[in-house]
Amino acid sequence: MATIRKTRGNFLEDFRPGALLRHKGGKTITEGLHALFTDFSFAVNPLAKNARYAAAYGYTGLLVPPSLVMNVVFSQTVEDISENARVNLEYIDMRFGVPVYVGDTLEAETRILGVTPSSRDRDRGVVHVQSTGYNQRREVVLTFQRKVQVWKRDIDAPVADGTVEPAHVETNLALPPYRPDADYRSLAYLTNPDSYFEDFTPGDVIEHSRGRLMTTEHIMLTGILDNTSQVHCNQWMVSQNPERFIGGQLIVYGGIPFNLCLGISSADVADNALAELRYATGRHTAPIFAGDTVFASTEIKDKRAFPGRDDLGVLETVLRGHKFVKKDAGPERVEIFYLEREILLKRRSHYA
Amino acid sequence: MATIRKTRGNFLEDFRPGALLRHKGGKTITEGLHALFTDFSFAVNPLAKNARYAAAYGYTGLLVPPSLVMNVVFSQTVEDISENARVNLEYIDMRFGVPVYVGDTLEAETRILGVTPSSRDRDRGVVHVQSTGYNQRREVVLTFQRKVQVWKRDIDAPVADGTVEPAHVETNLALPPYRPDADYRSLAYLTNPDSYFEDFTPGDVIEHSRGRLMTTEHIMLTGILDNTSQVHCNQWMVSQNPERFIGGQLIVYGGIPFNLCLGISSADVADNALAELRYATGRHTAPIFAGDTVFASTEIKDKRAFPGRDDLGVLETVLRGHKFVKKDAGPERVEIFYLEREILLKRRSHYA
Amino acid sequence: MATIRKTRGNFLEDFRPGALLRHKGGKTITEGLHALFTDFSFAVNPLAKNARYAAAYGYTGLLVPPSLVMNVVFSQTVEDISENARVNLEYIDMRFGVPVYVGDTLEAETRILGVTPSSRDRDRGVVHVQSTGYNQRREVVLTFQRKVQVWKRDIDAPVADGTVEPAHVETNLALPPYRPDADYRSLAYLTNPDSYFEDFTPGDVIEHSRGRLMTTEHIMLTGILDNTSQVHCNQWMVSQNPERFIGGQLIVYGGIPFNLCLGISSADVADNALAELRYATGRHTAPIFAGDTVFASTEIKDKRAFPGRDDLGVLETVLRGHKFVKKDAGPERVEIFYLEREILLKRRSHYA
Repeated sequence: MATIRKTRGNFLEDFRPGALLRHKGGKTITEGLHALFTDFSFAVNPLAKNARYAAAYGYTGLLVPPSLVMNVVFSQTVEDISENARVNLEYIDMRFGVPVYVGDTLEAETRILGVTPSSRDRDRGVVHVQSTGYNQRREVVLTFQRKVQVWKRDIDAPVADGTVEPAHVETNLALPPYRPDADYRSLAYLTNPDSYFEDFTPGDVIEHSRGRLMTTEHIMLTGILDNTSQVHCNQWMVSQNPERFIGGQLIVYGGIPFNLCLGISSADVADNALAELRYATGRHTAPIFAGDTVFASTEIKDKRAFPGRDDLGVLETVLRGHKFVKKDAGPERVEIFYLEREILLKRRSHYA
Repeated sequence: MATIRKTRGNFLEDFRPGALLRHKGGKTITEGLHALFTDFSFAVNPLAKNARYAAAYGYTGLLVPPSLVMNVVFSQTVEDISENARVNLEYIDMRFGVPVYVGDTLEAETRILGVTPSSRDRDRGVVHVQSTGYNQRREVVLTFQRKVQVWKRDIDAPVADGTVEPAHVETNLALPPYRPDADYRSLAYLTNPDSYFEDFTPGDVIEHSRGRLMTTEHIMLTGILDNTSQVHCNQWMVSQNPERFIGGQLIVYGGIPFNLCLGISSADVADNALAELRYATGRHTAPIFAGDTVFASTEIKDKRAFPGRDDLGVLETVLRGHKFVKKDAGPERVEIFYLEREILLKRRSHYA
Repeated sequence: MATIRKTRGNFLEDFRPGALLRHKGGKTITEGLHALFTDFSFAVNPLAKNARYAAAYGYTGLLVPPSLVMNVVFSQTVEDISENARVNLEYIDMRFGVPVYVGDTLEAETRILGVTPSSRDRDRGVVHVQSTGYNQRREVVLTFQRKVQVWKRDIDAPVADGTVEPAHVETNLALPPYRPDADYRSLAYLTNPDSYFEDFTPGDVIEHSRGRLMTTEHIMLTGILDNTSQVHCNQWMVSQNPERFIGGQLIVYGGIPFNLCLGISSADVADNALAELRYATGRHTAPIFAGDTVFASTEIKDKRAFPGRDDLGVLETVLRGHKFVKKDAGPERVEIFYLEREILLKRRSHYA
């Protein structure tokens, strides 16, 4: 007889550059998951809410919004990649593929691109990975790299230091074609009149007016994604070791503020989007906790044409999330999230 | 370069009597939304829970309960009508139309019936509106008027004071016919035996025995409805300005206690209902907050026949919600909700 | 005119040995309920998550996990059996039947097996019942006995003391057959490699590494199940009478830790299960409250063949839940749940 304490997830010394990990589980997106994650964040693009509108645009059902695709794929990678992580450092080159619908089953796999022990702290190091999500037809729905700081299990274990080149992962948005005979204009009242491609001016900063209190709901939302990371839900573990775990508080899983910031910005910059195109880089610049109210702003960096589609244009932005922290001198605005974000927008000339 | 702070929603000076606003978004009712809103409130009518029962009664799927129809339609009107409101004053002549099923897409529009600046406070006034919700076949699912007190953006702006007559909006319940050959009686065990039309006596008051604690769940529930009003979710804004916002607490969106009071009353007066017929008037008489336990009672006012349907009768009631507040002299019962409610009930003679 | 306060549910003196109660309501399992209950608990068996995997195993849709089947059936019995209970004493001989899918409608009925007044406290006694859940084709999905301590309404009322024998309720798991030509192995990466029948050694105890904070979410989760027991949600009632109600705190409905302990254990002992076979006995050994972090362990008791299926084996276990309570001498581990559990596991020889 033995008492066994299984530890799930890999530690720094377990990663091998070049290895490909196929993650467990997979997840079929139900109407339950869709309702919880699409709507709690003020996301307003009718492609994910209004089946009549989505059909008129040539989609075959309610779209699963990009932020939910990202959360489902990302969460599948957690046990293998970051269940034993200290902190998620960066998202890199996140690109979306074919449309995802309710009923699709998403699975994920991850290639290890690099393993680098810390030169200062012998108990940790950085793992650089490339994760890709697929639907049940093995079409790419999302691909991204990320860097994460991971603990070692055994401080003396050798680390497979090294790097490999990322694979080239093709993404295909598979956008429905623009149909000149379609009556898009009769549905234009369903979105904001001031959020078409023509409406944005590089250099402008839009302070989104809405804010949203995060409550302990984050624990359930994270669980529903199958994200098993213990720092988001295991209060006893965190309370026993407060100096290791941010003062003893449960930290909100990053996918929640990621989703929330996208949602809060949605009415101003994305309710006339056909797709999220690419996030070149992104990071969580400060943790959030239950009790924080999350806000967001969008800086318009540039605009460009989208080859082959006169009806669309690419808006290059930076999405920033922030919260306010009480200080003696008054409230201090603390940035919590930074995302370089390219949005594929409809042009008013073609749709309104 | 400019910093832009978009304010969503209209202020008192933006409303024009007679104008018709078609609201953004629309919403397809998913099984996720249905599960969250049908059940959290103790609502027990099997038409919205038991597909076998709904089919036996001639419905083509699980019904979306009237309280969810109301919440979905109402929430779509919030940004245009009441995002900048101080308080919702009254619901008037709320009537339900054709049955709504999971998968239906609801959209809403609102006609401005009246704009009246306050004679006492120059920074606000009352807007009287008539809102109607439609399904994807443009059939009316709900229509109602409401009065709401709205802030001005610019205290000196002129207000388009005036009124127009409400439009006549026909509602058709589209009830399945009574089939004398159907075996309703074999399903009678699925509902209470003492809540048929014959069981009620005008003058009686039924104190519903169940109570339900409202938690911070209200924030997510409100977000999932696409209700963007900031007083329900933006804790930072409210905390910064407590004298404007009820002492600095997030107020629970009225649709939640509306739904909850209907649900709490359901076992005693509505599990044998085929429809909610009409709410002549309704109002929130006190705010509720996370931490309050909500109770309800029903006063039976009158009973009448329902023309053309011997199997049904109309129960005229007043539904009241209440909570208890601790006082030095002991707990004080505070009314939070008042609704004049007509319920279309089955007669035992035909169904049990 | 009268003021009526309807009390729902039976008291000790209302039960008659041998009586059969058909419960109200019934419940169609939607994708909303499935998403909330399958995932919040770390349950990881892909049969309930990944439609592609479930189809490859011969199921016709996403499975509703046994813990949700149990919660839906159990909750339907609450009003009639335990709305006026003091405490749930024991689950006995819980066995699962045919697979349940999203869209199935479950109904429940209960036979009263025994009524025994307390020899010490005249205001209470024990009711022993046998409950069975059916789908819309009247196939058994679950059957179990339980014992519950119930209050009397009238301390002087006579009690129908007595017992009857339990009915023989046949359960049929209706497992899809093992197909030697099916390519199960190509999907083996979706589950853990160390949780097949061959991997377990009687006598071992597995301390599952994950824990999960329970929040006030339990109130909504319980409501969504149509569980109307007031001790889980009526804070005002409980606060008014703290000596009767565990110090004035809302107790978490037992089905939640039941579900949570199964989920926490899932990655280690049940992600390669085809079914939960039988729970011989189970009980809640201490209450849990919002704020508790729940953990679990599994003791391997024995292993045996499953007649007629070389590809499967039965793992006999005890699942225990626990929490930690702060004491002066340090944290004390308190057992909250005990379940004798037989799991039907795949053999590696046939599947991986």
